[in-house]
Amino acid sequence: MMNLDLIKEISVTSPEKIVMLVLDGLGGLPDPKTGKTELETAHIPNLDAIAAKGICGLADPIAPGITPGSGPGHLALFGYDPISNKIGRGVLEAAGIDIELGHDDMAARGNFCTIDGKGIITDRRAGRISTEKCAELCKLLDGMSIDGVDIKIYPVREHRFVAVFHGNNLDIHITESDPSRIGVSPQEIKAENAIAKKTANIVNKLVAGAKDILSDHHPANMILLRGFAKKPHLPSMQEIYKLNPLAIAVYPMYRGLARLVGMQVAKTGTTLEDEIKTLQENYKKYDFFFLHVKGMDTAGEDGDFARKVKLLEQIDAALPALTGLKPDVLVIAGDHSTPAVYGGHSWHPVPVVICSKYCRTDGVKKFSETAFLSGGLGRISSTQIITLAMANARKLIKFGA
Amino acid sequence: MMNLDLIKEISVTSPEKIVMLVLDGLGGLPDPKTGKTELETAHIPNLDAIAAKGICGLADPIAPGITPGSGPGHLALFGYDPISNKIGRGVLEAAGIDIELGHDDMAARGNFCTIDGKGIITDRRAGRISTEKCAELCKLLDGMSIDGVDIKIYPVREHRFVAVFHGNNLDIHITESDPSRIGVSPQEIKAENAIAKKTANIVNKLVAGAKDILSDHHPANMILLRGFAKKPHLPSMQEIYKLNPLAIAVYPMYRGLARLVGMQVAKTGTTLEDEIKTLQENYKKYDFFFLHVKGMDTAGEDGDFARKVKLLEQIDAALPALTGLKPDVLVIAGDHSTPAVYGGHSWHPVPVVICSKYCRTDGVKKFSETAFLSGGLGRISSTQIITLAMANARKLIKFGA
Repeated sequence: MMNLDLIKEISVTSPEKIVMLVLDGLGGLPDPKTGKTELETAHIPNLDAIAAKGICGLADPIAPGITPGSGPGHLALFGYDPISNKIGRGVLEAAGIDIELGHDDMAARGNFCTIDGKGIITDRRAGRISTEKCAELCKLLDGMSIDGVDIKIYPVREHRFVAVFHGNNLDIHITESDPSRIGVSPQEIKAENAIAKKTANIVNKLVAGAKDILSDHHPANMILLRGFAKKPHLPSMQEIYKLNPLAIAVYPMYRGLARLVGMQVAKTGTTLEDEIKTLQENYKKYDFFFLHVKGMDTAGEDGDFARKVKLLEQIDAALPALTGLKPDVLVIAGDHSTPAVYGGHSWHPVPVVICSKYCRTDGVKKFSETAFLSGGLGRISSTQIITLAMANARKLIKFGA
Repeated sequence: MMNLDLIKEISVTSPEKIVMLVLDGLGGLPDPKTGKTELETAHIPNLDAIAAKGICGLADPIAPGITPGSGPGHLALFGYDPISNKIGRGVLEAAGIDIELGHDDMAARGNFCTIDGKGIITDRRAGRISTEKCAELCKLLDGMSIDGVDIKIYPVREHRFVAVFHGNNLDIHITESDPSRIGVSPQEIKAENAIAKKTANIVNKLVAGAKDILSDHHPANMILLRGFAKKPHLPSMQEIYKLNPLAIAVYPMYRGLARLVGMQVAKTGTTLEDEIKTLQENYKKYDFFFLHVKGMDTAGEDGDFARKVKLLEQIDAALPALTGLKPDVLVIAGDHSTPAVYGGHSWHPVPVVICSKYCRTDGVKKFSETAFLSGGLGRISSTQIITLAMANARKLIKFGA
């Protein structure tokens, strides 16, 4: 982990621009039939050319063997220790629907569920009600004020919602109401310390109120809450790196993660081409750009090797519009690997390349997991990537006399 | 960072001798015209032979992306954490002119400067007065005694001098008088805590006295002080490694750095040949030799690729006199890279080779940044080099039963 106090001490503003392209779920595993990974299967001449020009390596988002969620995977890329800086489920869910939390707000992940006449949970997802139905029910629950705390309820998708508690002295040290299984009642929320008693009480009153309001709305006749969390107190990227950073991401969760570290968030469309257009339009106004590309991760999670390969080729084809801007420093990295044959996020280190005038090019010619093993970056922690990008952009002065 | 308590526990004295040759600013970057670094351009058969016999790798002095000053770069090579053991500017400047500081002494970097009739700084370097003039003016200021503190003023070069404060309870937590720009007055020195008030007062009296004394010496009619520092409390190399170490360095700053970690400092001449002769003469009396070679760093800072190449070839030609001593362990390393195309210290990892009977030779045949990527040491922290040297010299016993 990089020492952010040290970075803060030596970071300076410079005219150089850094583009960090994050290909979600970038790293893969070989297809047993061909022995080639997604990167080795795809025809990606532009990525290969960037690998040949840049310095390559493999990055561990957290530590060897540890599979990161999206939160820690991105925090590491932004240089924050992903272990000591936890982002709670509620905060991540709120970020995922573009809700900006205040520093005193507490957020929780909610499910509509089904209970029987005895109050026993029979379906934790209320038969996966439609997103429209979810929005309708959220409206019924939205806007309660309990003991001076205002509670907003936001629909997410199907049975999922976010509850945001706005008030003073809310304490997240409370148990969850979601027992994570059926055949039992929703659990009473208990305080884990004396100060949290007030908060537990408020949440229990919300649950009781929701039960009354929803009683006629079978199968969505109850709610379950978990992942109570507040926004983490992260020093901003402006503060640490003296950067003026812009995030460009199609999916709200990544915009939310970027906001947590102080980035401005651009309005953009739904494709990589849209994102690159947004980059072009904003290129003069910022000096750091986080550009997030989601698709490959989803293909990997679906175990769809061919789709992941195809998406790689589409990304490769879109790259000239980005490299045409000639960023002083171009970083291509991933928040974690999502090998299609594994069917989920994985612990495998993620390919990373840094391309700049001063990068000390190595002998790597292909953009792949195996080729990058002999890269000049070696095996690094993902938290070191941004420091290297800053150095290459002449944004870090000498440490010590 | 190595755990020095652990090393202290397992280090033993042995007859084996370690020579650590530090080539200041060793690592480079490719010349865009040829695609070859300084090391790849130079004809260096002796260095190549050492690389072929030894175990090679690349070392980060501080961390990936962090450019070290000379102080931290050397502390890392001596095995000390360069981040927690800071060496202040004043101490480094004092070391640079062979002044031995006592543990209670406070040193500061000084400039002669020019002020106008209103006391506004018009030139922070007093027109870069001659070194002779500087020495003459230092004599005028030298030897004041203020509130029980004796103040010595030592000339450095041109407008630069060192002020050493000798007395009890001096506190370095004071602001600087040098505003680092012209068009303003020298700043009053302020205490950053209550204890430092006395020190701030003394320094302000020195500045006021200097102003009076220098009033007729335009352009050098005022002084600026910064980098107040005391000698860091470092455990000595004798204490940690049980070594009997000798430093051989032409430039005073490196002799000073060696003194800070307890090394004896040899008298030597001005060339590498002189230094190797000093090594030969002292070879029987010590078991660890730090041999510092400065030239390449200066060539790199001057952006002079050809001169750095030529100096490498000169060093290579001088090596047989060193290897002829057949040191049990030979380490060739750098305190940091200074690529000529970058024109300054840089963050790039530094080539390192360790040559001994037990080094586990790898397949590397050339002494270069790229060749060392596949070396057996891999990518290490510079703080680990001395531990490896100690192990190869049978100076570390087994850890644990």
